[in-house]
Amino acid sequence: MCKIENDRGLSGCEVYMKCEHLQKTGVILFSVTHSSGNHGQGLAWAASQVGVLCYVAVPRNAPPSKMEAMIEYGAKVELCDATVKSREDTCARLAKDLSYCIVEPFDDSNIICGQGTIGAEIIEQLPDVDAIFLAIGGGGMASGIVAYMNEVKPSVKVFLIEPQGKHLAVYLKSGVLTMKRDVVDTIADGIRVLKIGRNCYPILKSCSDNVITVQFTVLQTDDEIRVALRLIWTRTKQRVEPSAAVPLAGLLKISPSDHRLKKVVLVLCGGNVDLDFVP
Amino acid sequence: MCKIENDRGLSGCEVYMKCEHLQKTGVILFSVTHSSGNHGQGLAWAASQVGVLCYVAVPRNAPPSKMEAMIEYGAKVELCDATVKSREDTCARLAKDLSYCIVEPFDDSNIICGQGTIGAEIIEQLPDVDAIFLAIGGGGMASGIVAYMNEVKPSVKVFLIEPQGKHLAVYLKSGVLTMKRDVVDTIADGIRVLKIGRNCYPILKSCSDNVITVQFTVLQTDDEIRVALRLIWTRTKQRVEPSAAVPLAGLLKISPSDHRLKKVVLVLCGGNVDLDFVP
Repeated sequence: MCKIENDRGLSGCEVYMKCEHLQKTGVILFSVTHSSGNHGQGLAWAASQVGVLCYVAVPRNAPPSKMEAMIEYGAKVELCDATVKSREDTCARLAKDLSYCIVEPFDDSNIICGQGTIGAEIIEQLPDVDAIFLAIGGGGMASGIVAYMNEVKPSVKVFLIEPQGKHLAVYLKSGVLTMKRDVVDTIADGIRVLKIGRNCYPILKSCSDNVITVQFTVLQTDDEIRVALRLIWTRTKQRVEPSAAVPLAGLLKISPSDHRLKKVVLVLCGGNVDLDFVP
Repeated sequence: MCKIENDRGLSGCEVYMKCEHLQKTGVILFSVTHSSGNHGQGLAWAASQVGVLCYVAVPRNAPPSKMEAMIEYGAKVELCDATVKSREDTCARLAKDLSYCIVEPFDDSNIICGQGTIGAEIIEQLPDVDAIFLAIGGGGMASGIVAYMNEVKPSVKVFLIEPQGKHLAVYLKSGVLTMKRDVVDTIADGIRVLKIGRNCYPILKSCSDNVITVQFTVLQTDDEIRVALRLIWTRTKQRVEPSAAVPLAGLLKISPSDHRLKKVVLVLCGGNVDLDFVP
């Protein structure tokens, strides 16, 4: 865990970063999934380590760097439309045609448990943490960490930071998705999925009061995610992807003292950015 | 110190990175210097901590991000031409006009000693290191580390990586600078100074057989420094500046097994890159 020096008083509390963007990814050993990139890379790398074939259904708008990395790790990439339905349909068709198992990107209890180890590591490395800030997409990582904290250290507040348009708080309270689309338009390509996984939902329901929404408007350079991303790039020299800057964008939107937060952890996930990407 | 996982066999040895780009800079407490950015930021930050004014003569071709950082840390920036002569003249004029002390960017025994602590930290963190790879500009950091190793652990080989056009090996052997210009044209803006400091020269003379030259040609995207920089950005997620990629470019040019190198350290220095810079 890295501490961000806070001599310019940007947030008014001690800020630590859990650097998941430096992971080689966890180890998963099956064969078909859908992913905009990070989960797909994890599966591809793990499959390559044991000499197993791996297919990934990838939405056409995923960053080229993520597609290249999956292919470089030995995955077969099948392009699909940028909707969850197309991702899931493509994944199901591949699994059926090839007789391969599907590894859900977030809605799987093994995936959730694996992500929960991030929570365990945070408590090990910073026992007196007050709050954890997470970007939320499908909810796999979020529910893993929330489940761990609820069980082991319920005093730690977990904030879920969502891109504008996801309406997570309403969804968590009502359980009803009112949107017509199934993805959000955001620069944070790792968290475009609108719906929370069926297994993630009951775990995350307890967090409905801790949702922070951050803005992103295409072609606007002063949006909250970009501002946070530029801060991380220039101040910490960590070349994270936009999704990893979402937690800082969330922290900068609230007043830590209002929530009595002294030590907070931002989970930085992940680190796959095209070389020519300028925030 | 971070270990780079080496599962793709890029270099054929265990590679560690000494992450100087993550430093807040050392502490120096005087008032006029010349710098393309990193030393100037260090001085500006140190001066700001004790409420002292600080002036920096900065060559016009220094990256805007470095100039902005110096100004943000409270330094007064005086632009000059992109030659060592203009830098030194401007610095001397400012010192005379303002009656301030000059803090040499590299040719000062205190600066050299301070840089030597990098060597001490490397030995502390990786006692069985075989070799250290350094980018060399004016020679302050290089001579600090070389002096430390010569004294404490002479078995460690120190490689000096220079940009094409510097002709360091010839210069170290003969002591005569044959170039007509005093700067090298390279993307690695932190090591453009051609001449080695007068106090650095006797220390570095012993390394004349361990100089590695790497190429950079303006507008060529496949040059050795760019290739190394892209590797560091994409594989380690560290947003270092071009100068910090020079040691990896050097490592990739030699065959570590020829030199019987098993564990090598690359010194990554520094981390100041314009936001719109694409390697």
